[in-house]
Amino acid sequence: MEKKEMLYEGKAKQLFATEVTDQLIVHFKDDATAFNGQKKGQIKEKGKINNKITNFFFKLLEAEGIKTHLIRELNQTDSLVKKVKIIPLEVVMRNLAAGSLAKRIGFTEGKLLRQPVIEFYYKDDQLGDPLINISHIELLKLAEHQELEKLIALSHKINYILSKFLKARKIDLVDFKLEFGKTASGEIILADEITPDTCRFWDSQTKEKLDKDRFRRDLGNVEAAYQEMYQRITGQKWQ
Amino acid sequence: MEKKEMLYEGKAKQLFATEVTDQLIVHFKDDATAFNGQKKGQIKEKGKINNKITNFFFKLLEAEGIKTHLIRELNQTDSLVKKVKIIPLEVVMRNLAAGSLAKRIGFTEGKLLRQPVIEFYYKDDQLGDPLINISHIELLKLAEHQELEKLIALSHKINYILSKFLKARKIDLVDFKLEFGKTASGEIILADEITPDTCRFWDSQTKEKLDKDRFRRDLGNVEAAYQEMYQRITGQKWQ
Ligand SMILES: Nc1ncnc2c1ncn2[C@@H]1O[C@H](COP(=O)(O)OP(=O)(O)O)[C@@H](O)[C@H]1O
Ligand SMILES: Nc1ncnc2c1ncn2[C@@H]1O[C@H](COP(=O)(O)OP(=O)(O)O)[C@@H](O)[C@H]1O
Ligand SMILES: [Mg+2]
Ligand SMILES: [Mg+2]
Repeated sequence: MEKKEMLYEGKAKQLFATEVTDQLIVHFKDDATAFNGQKKGQIKEKGKINNKITNFFFKLLEAEGIKTHLIRELNQTDSLVKKVKIIPLEVVMRNLAAGSLAKRIGFTEGKLLRQPVIEFYYKDDQLGDPLINISHIELLKLAEHQELEKLIALSHKINYILSKFLKARKIDLVDFKLEFGKTASGEIILADEITPDTCRFWDSQTKEKLDKDRFRRDLGNVEAAYQEMYQRITGQKWQ
Repeated sequence: MEKKEMLYEGKAKQLFATEVTDQLIVHFKDDATAFNGQKKGQIKEKGKINNKITNFFFKLLEAEGIKTHLIRELNQTDSLVKKVKIIPLEVVMRNLAAGSLAKRIGFTEGKLLRQPVIEFYYKDDQLGDPLINISHIELLKLAEHQELEKLIALSHKINYILSKFLKARKIDLVDFKLEFGKTASGEIILADEITPDTCRFWDSQTKEKLDKDRFRRDLGNVEAAYQEMYQRITGQKWQ
């Protein structure tokens, strides 16, 4: 599949057109950002690891009946995906209190939530991706009622599948962010990525952070954490 | 009704016990605060005006079938109310973009919203009254599902009644905050206050602000604005 012009360059990925109208190539970069782009850096081999972790998870989810944008992996850093119209919502699912939730409701980081919490953030860099509620979503027509119901149901199902899978690999899925999109035919499918950039992964025993919080908070061993997650998830040694 | 010990002193009001277990005296103070208590001041005669405006609105709402905590006005600054267990949510209804909503979703102040927006803030001074969603409310057990449905329906009805009433008096009801409480028998009723402290009132023609934003933003003529609102609402001259 030929890579044609770059359609979009984001903070962590590039999107390229292909000779097929509704297919894109996603290229995963080593670039890392935090705090809405204020902090910038690189994480060695993150592009490769994130491409492979995303594809692993997307295949796992497909096997459980969740439709995703993945068509196939093209090479170490690139995948072919279905082009969708991204619903401008970051859907965040949480199982343990961390980050902005811990701050917002005054829970200590790591507190087990009685039930998963779902949040919607308005995907808008200029506004700093603010938390919004259903009423804001309706006002801004970001998604229709039925679509929202679908996003919620899918996100809970994905949380269940991933949490269970990771638990068996001694990883707590603390929280994660999903993006969904609409295909030309109007179907809602999972898009974007599921990686240590977009999830909080903690070692179940030691509670060691194995995700982008190591970069955000300057905890060191960032690359090692990404490699460790690759190994835990795929069961294969990195390189 | 005899005022017994003070049970609570808030930023704008004091609550006193009475000889009747489930009845309280609310005393409205002239104290004004903004930005979660960081800015402090006094607004001359605010206590009297807010007591009277609240009672006027609560009677108006009662006449339309909305249950409120009001029993009767006792004197200029004090009213007798039913004691309730306050649901720790500030319910905010919005008709025009202003304040934190304008900031959050990037709307210019004054933009007419296609439909009223409802928001829930967690009533917790230490946390700075954060915006929360239904999922947070469920997690924290702040209200049950049916109660929430009730709050939403009541808030929309109140918005309809007040907007219409104020429109006829050449005031735009931009947004306002409500608090609800549960009586001993489990009934949900409207409590607290509806005043220029808790509403944004704009002159329909000139768009002049006639509410606490004059204090928050140091716009001057704060007392005059409160008096003007008293006059527009009650149709009576102040003093
Ligand atoms: N299948 C897809 N079709 C179209 N756009 C997609 C698809 N999957 C992801 N995207 C979008 O591509 C961009 C990926 O680049 P990224 O670096 O994550 O961007 P951002 O900095 O906006 O998060 C995101 O804006 C994401 O919403
Ligand atoms: N009917 C009622 N029964 C019990 N508490 C009430 C009732 N009406 C209002 N309250 C509570 O009384 C307090 C009023 O004082 P206020 O100065 O507004 O406090 P705050 O600074 O907490 O907003 C609020 O905490 C409010 O929730
Ligand atoms: Mg992204
Ligand atoms: Mg108050």
